Amino acid sequence: MIVSIKTFTLDSFELDSGDVLSPVEIAYEPYGVLNHDRSNAVLILHAFSGDAHAAGVSEADGKPGWWESMIGPGKAFDTNRYFVLCSNVLGGCSGTTGPSSIDPSSGKPYGSEFPFITMGDMVRLQKRLVEHLGIEKLLTVAGGSMGGMQALQWATAFPEACASVIPIASSHRHSAQQIAFNEVGRQAIMADPDFQGGDYYDGPGPLRGLAVARMVGHITYMSDDSMHEKFGRRRRSMQSAEDIFEVESYLRYRGGEFVNRFDANSYITITRAMDTFDLAGESDSLGEALECCKARFLVLSFTSDWLYPSYQSQEIVRALRGRNRDVAYVELPSNYGHDAFLIEAGEQTDLIKGFLANTYRKL
Amino acid sequence: MIVSIKTFTLDSFELDSGDVLSPVEIAYEPYGVLNHDRSNAVLILHAFSGDAHAAGVSEADGKPGWWESMIGPGKAFDTNRYFVLCSNVLGGCSGTTGPSSIDPSSGKPYGSEFPFITMGDMVRLQKRLVEHLGIEKLLTVAGGSMGGMQALQWATAFPEACASVIPIASSHRHSAQQIAFNEVGRQAIMADPDFQGGDYYDGPGPLRGLAVARMVGHITYMSDDSMHEKFGRRRRSMQSAEDIFEVESYLRYRGGEFVNRFDANSYITITRAMDTFDLAGESDSLGEALECCKARFLVLSFTSDWLYPSYQSQEIVRALRGRNRDVAYVELPSNYGHDAFLIEAGEQTDLIKGFLANTYRKL
Repeated sequence: MIVSIKTFTLDSFELDSGDVLSPVEIAYEPYGVLNHDRSNAVLILHAFSGDAHAAGVSEADGKPGWWESMIGPGKAFDTNRYFVLCSNVLGGCSGTTGPSSIDPSSGKPYGSEFPFITMGDMVRLQKRLVEHLGIEKLLTVAGGSMGGMQALQWATAFPEACASVIPIASSHRHSAQQIAFNEVGRQAIMADPDFQGGDYYDGPGPLRGLAVARMVGHITYMSDDSMHEKFGRRRRSMQSAEDIFEVESYLRYRGGEFVNRFDANSYITITRAMDTFDLAGESDSLGEALECCKARFLVLSFTSDWLYPSYQSQEIVRALRGRNRDVAYVELPSNYGHDAFLIEAGEQTDLIKGFLANTYRKL
Repeated sequence: MIVSIKTFTLDSFELDSGDVLSPVEIAYEPYGVLNHDRSNAVLILHAFSGDAHAAGVSEADGKPGWWESMIGPGKAFDTNRYFVLCSNVLGGCSGTTGPSSIDPSSGKPYGSEFPFITMGDMVRLQKRLVEHLGIEKLLTVAGGSMGGMQALQWATAFPEACASVIPIASSHRHSAQQIAFNEVGRQAIMADPDFQGGDYYDGPGPLRGLAVARMVGHITYMSDDSMHEKFGRRRRSMQSAEDIFEVESYLRYRGGEFVNRFDANSYITITRAMDTFDLAGESDSLGEALECCKARFLVLSFTSDWLYPSYQSQEIVRALRGRNRDVAYVELPSNYGHDAFLIEAGEQTDLIKGFLANTYRKL
């Protein structure tokens, strides 16, 4: 399945903050075929550092999509049955308008001038894309991690527009610990002199700070167990007691690799949107917030995920059950930590396939 | 209890690496009185960022010791009964020779020239101090975190010289995850251009990198629960959705505070010593390594400590039991995460008091 990125442009888009971005471009990839009554559309929502390239092989660089194991013919999100769509989030750096995009008013990248973005903004922009494609109601909105947060935002902001919701390894709001890990990443970026207050696009940019931020991220995505299995205490070479450990070499590599594909201002913008996301809102009642939902829910979490621990998914399930909403919850066994939602395709596939077929039947 | 720091100087000291440091200064603080037969001496071993000022009020700056709740008249380490001693580790930056000390061969701080240090070096140097004070056998060696690692090293390197050992919230070797967190700290420091390859003493030094490293540390010292209780999702002010969270403000404060009292090269030197410490050694058998031990053990861990999880303490206990050694183990309930060993004085006190009295009786 060779795929290519598409772009949809809006003349202007108003943010929750009141600021207006104009124009706004949305990068997206469609897989499969929209059926005649437009009832088979699935929206996939990517995690923090993801992009619109969720499945297939990229025409541009030959790379597989980040959820290739889950989207395609016969897979969990079966492109023989469903029309699957994934777009890059607002504030990102992979085709959708973000801090590295050109600000038409200055002719230079937005940088520090890029406005504050919310999860609500991201989802409202996705809604515009979905409308543009002529889809009134999505069969499902699904995603892991920040993708799950967007799915929850969809369920409450547009209850009529999604028949089902699949939040995976996610949360209705960040805990202090989750905010803290994001803040360390932001501080690592801002501590880099090449950050230049966010206006670094005519220089090298805060590459070292961004790499350190990513290293912290990678630790939180894995589990103690999976790191033990993958690296243990092995050294990169056996020459001396001072040799670095394989896990150090891995983190340095992943940190270095990340800076080639991600923008530091997007890092700050998107993590801020995640940290400030709070579905319970001012009433501080998740149940009240979910009262409006009409969708069926399939909530998934993973035993070894300590970044988005199962108790957070269970809070969502409890609130939905308390409002008598249709919700299924499964905690899947996995050693892979938070990464499990990207890795454990087998068990997710059975659950999601059945859930989607059932949702489709009930439409 | 007003206390002041003392210094003991060795003309030279040979390291595991074969390098020789000369001279070497050891900063230490004594509390209580050594009895006539020198049988009541307790050696306290500090954690990564600790120092010799474990108890009492510092004559120099009026600050309480880092384990003030545990050491003093009537406390767990009762200075009415025991002579308690704490020294700053080799490679540190609080009085004992470390990378910021003057290298006599150049007249400048060692910086990048400071040699690779091991847990064995730290402990062998402590042994010299103990001998200098005329103590042949310690009643106990005790410490939390890296202090526990040193205690284990004492038990195996000098089995005749310690009647008992109290490793708290510790490990016989770091897991890949523990190494990874330390590596992120090191990379944050080294990413700072002011690090200057370690030779930064005529400049400001890598203050921003060191602060970021410390922020990561603070997250790992707390638990998800304790962060939730301490900060929740409270904002520093209520002016706008973009205001920073209290947890962010706390991390920035603690990071900024740390750079005033700690040296970045010591950070690298000491975390390296922790990461390369492996009591099981080349045989990869902890039981074999502990075979030589003659001490009684009291091993403590805390339920919510995810940085040094209880399973690591239990590995030590299992290996000791397998060699029929005298070992008591208690997993204490606490929400404070790794910090619990510094905070939960109550329950530790009962256990340690009884254990010490019993050890003293059995001498």
